[in-house]
Amino acid sequence: MTTDTLPVLAILGGTGDLGTGLARRWAQAGYQVIIGSRTLEKAEAAVSDLREVMADRGVGDVTVQPMENLAAAEAADVVAVTVPFSHHASTLTLVKDALQGKILIDVTVPLVPPKVGRVQLPEGGSAGQIAQELLGEGVAVVSAFQNVAAAHLQEGSGVECDVLVCGNKKAAREEVIKLVEAAGMRGFHAGMINNAAAAEALTSVLIVINKQYSCHAGIRITGLSD
Amino acid sequence: MTTDTLPVLAILGGTGDLGTGLARRWAQAGYQVIIGSRTLEKAEAAVSDLREVMADRGVGDVTVQPMENLAAAEAADVVAVTVPFSHHASTLTLVKDALQGKILIDVTVPLVPPKVGRVQLPEGGSAGQIAQELLGEGVAVVSAFQNVAAAHLQEGSGVECDVLVCGNKKAAREEVIKLVEAAGMRGFHAGMINNAAAAEALTSVLIVINKQYSCHAGIRITGLSD
Repeated sequence: MTTDTLPVLAILGGTGDLGTGLARRWAQAGYQVIIGSRTLEKAEAAVSDLREVMADRGVGDVTVQPMENLAAAEAADVVAVTVPFSHHASTLTLVKDALQGKILIDVTVPLVPPKVGRVQLPEGGSAGQIAQELLGEGVAVVSAFQNVAAAHLQEGSGVECDVLVCGNKKAAREEVIKLVEAAGMRGFHAGMINNAAAAEALTSVLIVINKQYSCHAGIRITGLSD
Repeated sequence: MTTDTLPVLAILGGTGDLGTGLARRWAQAGYQVIIGSRTLEKAEAAVSDLREVMADRGVGDVTVQPMENLAAAEAADVVAVTVPFSHHASTLTLVKDALQGKILIDVTVPLVPPKVGRVQLPEGGSAGQIAQELLGEGVAVVSAFQNVAAAHLQEGSGVECDVLVCGNKKAAREEVIKLVEAAGMRGFHAGMINNAAAAEALTSVLIVINKQYSCHAGIRITGLSD
């Protein structure tokens, strides 16, 4: 497997279930992946855990590195951010310069604890819009993966959830759709970055459904073949 | 088929594809349905068309009546509203008194033409929240059906789309879920009326997908059986 033509990926705040779930899937697909965290120690611990799981699954030949968030953003071609909303703006501010000219995949859902099952979109409309505003036009912000249960990403098998991919630049959305597919899901062009509000709001609805059914719900787009 | 125990249903602004689609399905399920419009003439024309379609399908024994919106709201036990967002507040203001003590099913999507594929939620958060605010606590506002393509409702067969049902009162949501099922779909408790924002925003995403695939897309909730 060659990684020569594949972009290097970083996942900021990538030590949680969602971040490591994406890291596993992308690494398994042959991408070089950097797990970023606020401290190198936390990133190293996550990478070490991840290597163990991968080895258990018989997947040995993967490239996953730990770094601090800023170094990770500098070293990568495409950067994903999977931090709680309360750290969203500060994390992006830290790496703003390093992101210029790159794609930022914003996975952030603006949940407001403790009522995480209640849609409470921020004043800027959505986390995605806030990110685009904060980072400026030099960064192609693309929102994605907000509706995917981390539990399913951690599994080895396919994920029964479609991914809505929003962003102002079509070419950037297409790059991200490739990464969605590499992670084992279908990605859909879902409109400009304003539309991130739909996917972000839907996460609270899925949390409500999860509670009722004791499950990790997702969504599928239907009716494509009319 | 007896309609003794079933609530009488009214659909305000019910002369469009969405309103008549719901009317057909509910009438076929044995409900007494009133199609409301701003003028009695328009309501009569819609009912006449609908009776023709039903007769063509060999469904003769249905009860569908035309009325002006206010009379329809007064005569019904459960009232749905399927008007464009630009007529949402004025229609609800007209029937506010008639709705007290009843369930209002809000199907309104706050699209802002011409950019209907762009999520542009209103200042009140969502049409559903605006309705609840405007009508007061005496009316149980339940949002539903925002993601269902009218084209599919018009068809005789099952609809491959789930319905997110939001509202502040669980009993009212349950009543509406029964009506979702009567119309041939699955309904899900999707949280308080704030969460209407998710379903309303999702409609713009589906419009974007419809354009790409030349289809009438919908959604399905997945992963229920974990």
